Amino acid sequence: MKILHTADWHIGKKLNGRDLMDDQKFVLEQLMKQIKELKPDIIVVAGDLYDRSNPSKEALNMVNHYLYKMNKEMGLPVLMISGNHDSKALLDYGSEWFKASDLYIHTSLDDILEPVMINGHNFYLVPHIDVLEARHHFDNKELRTHHDVYRHIVEQIELDAEVKNVLIGHLFIQDGKQSESERALSIGLSEEVDSEIFDSFDYVLLGHLHHPFAISHDKIFYSGSPLKYSFNEVKQPKGFRWIDTEENTVKFIPLTPVHDIVEYEGSYDDIINEKIDFDDKEAYFKFILSDLRHVKEPMSKIKMIYPNTLELKVTAENHDFNMTTIDMKETGDYDIYASFMEEIGRKPPTAIETELFEQHFGGGNNETD
Amino acid sequence: MKILHTADWHIGKKLNGRDLMDDQKFVLEQLMKQIKELKPDIIVVAGDLYDRSNPSKEALNMVNHYLYKMNKEMGLPVLMISGNHDSKALLDYGSEWFKASDLYIHTSLDDILEPVMINGHNFYLVPHIDVLEARHHFDNKELRTHHDVYRHIVEQIELDAEVKNVLIGHLFIQDGKQSESERALSIGLSEEVDSEIFDSFDYVLLGHLHHPFAISHDKIFYSGSPLKYSFNEVKQPKGFRWIDTEENTVKFIPLTPVHDIVEYEGSYDDIINEKIDFDDKEAYFKFILSDLRHVKEPMSKIKMIYPNTLELKVTAENHDFNMTTIDMKETGDYDIYASFMEEIGRKPPTAIETELFEQHFGGGNNETD
Repeated sequence: MKILHTADWHIGKKLNGRDLMDDQKFVLEQLMKQIKELKPDIIVVAGDLYDRSNPSKEALNMVNHYLYKMNKEMGLPVLMISGNHDSKALLDYGSEWFKASDLYIHTSLDDILEPVMINGHNFYLVPHIDVLEARHHFDNKELRTHHDVYRHIVEQIELDAEVKNVLIGHLFIQDGKQSESERALSIGLSEEVDSEIFDSFDYVLLGHLHHPFAISHDKIFYSGSPLKYSFNEVKQPKGFRWIDTEENTVKFIPLTPVHDIVEYEGSYDDIINEKIDFDDKEAYFKFILSDLRHVKEPMSKIKMIYPNTLELKVTAENHDFNMTTIDMKETGDYDIYASFMEEIGRKPPTAIETELFEQHFGGGNNETD
Repeated sequence: MKILHTADWHIGKKLNGRDLMDDQKFVLEQLMKQIKELKPDIIVVAGDLYDRSNPSKEALNMVNHYLYKMNKEMGLPVLMISGNHDSKALLDYGSEWFKASDLYIHTSLDDILEPVMINGHNFYLVPHIDVLEARHHFDNKELRTHHDVYRHIVEQIELDAEVKNVLIGHLFIQDGKQSESERALSIGLSEEVDSEIFDSFDYVLLGHLHHPFAISHDKIFYSGSPLKYSFNEVKQPKGFRWIDTEENTVKFIPLTPVHDIVEYEGSYDDIINEKIDFDDKEAYFKFILSDLRHVKEPMSKIKMIYPNTLELKVTAENHDFNMTTIDMKETGDYDIYASFMEEIGRKPPTAIETELFEQHFGGGNNETD
């Protein structure tokens, strides 16, 4: 069986306030073209289809459009799960009707023990799970970490040794064995799940981490996101996975974005005098520049040359406190929060932090009606 | 053919901040029971399924649940259109899959000329239309009012005289002929559509107005909403329509709410001393009372007896400026706006006003991200 594995589309995502829907459309059109050429038997979308639990109508239309293309136009089975960014209620909406044309969308723990069976392959669709939700669902207070939860789930799945067993998940996997004492240190918000609990599966196809090579393992794979979604991802390859279960081969196939994301550290002088040769002046730039201190409105000046500049930062040694310039007008609450977290913690918010933020501030919901 | 016609479910609606989902569930369970007993050939839901373009996950789950019951469990064809409260993108989501099991949801002007054909009946599903949207769609600047728009649409529909033709719409119909000069006065925000433009249809089944007898006509019917959704609706019967196209009979069948909505005008003294006999102390009350002026925290006191009191108002003659007490904590922006409009204009906001409000303040959307 030939499986095309993608994940983390994050439809509706903005980068420093810049709407990426045209970029997403560009890359998904490429993906559709690849699907037509490669002719997979099945498509896996491992969570985070939307960027927000509360997507815009444009995002809704776009997801609907590409699901239609893959499932109805090309007639391919599609297996999907909800990620931490998705609204389970929204993804679940209509799923009872979708099944009739082999579009399987799983958002609930109720369905995890029953595989979707296709051509001698049993697919276990495990949506993103919150620890508290799992504790409640299984009525088991022993479940304290994501690792506990996934181990508990895997223990309950009765695998059929006659078929190939594929788990589809949206989680943060951790390679190498951890001792219990090491784990004890990260109880609570720890999201890591040890890879060894999935040893009995033939393939584990994941979403959540945007880097396709976040783990190096012979049976566990991330597809990565189809696009770079933050300046932390500048160096990551982007594309999808191609799994041939007969030949037992797994490939990564790249996709090309319309705008690349570029981070450049150097001097303002070099940038403004165009001394640096960038492949694409229309790329989404983040400049980390020295000698910015006395420049008035550097963003406007740099945008004359690189119109899609999204972030300006003063080189670290120049200031005790880093100064970052982004266009606040176009930047939403989450983005401000995320860059603040990156600023103070040197890493982006975790999925759980994102979830908490979304719950409390996230894009408005009916509570404010 | 036997048609069950309902509309204006407004799932997720709040009344003065009070969540009505349990009330909605109660009355929709009754409706499902009636469907099982009466065995219609088809179900029509004429718009405003949701109350907000941005429904909560509970509202989404509820709509999904009842659509599943009617269409999948009972196997009935369901014809639906979007109303002015619905998000077209949300209602359209999945509709290409739904068709396969005879669940037709139309949200776009693209589909209005193609009827859904079932058993010698042609159903024209006309979603709620905004004048500007129609002007753009038909590229016709002459379309100035809802009346113009619907006349334009009806003129384009080629009716088959061999079948029964049924139009399903979500609009404000106006009985009796208006002269052009009268219409001229109401150009612009006027929503009224004259009934005579639908003369060539056998049945016109409508949503939008919540009163099932808003028009008295031999071929045009509102089902009304299944529940009372404002204190302006206290005296309206609530239920659904039952149309038998062979016998050419149309009936209104009532539904019973779990809580009635009651408006009472009288003295605070009578209320607080329980001198008035109400059928149900748990009803949703609006009291318009004299002698409130010197009572401290009258709402708390009255709620001790009538816990679901939602509104307190001082009798008009007592004050130059009416004083209304509602629980602001539980009252959303739209409700405050709506009661303000009622207060100053003596009538609730029109659909257009609601739409404008929703667009600008409505429940949050990704613009604020």
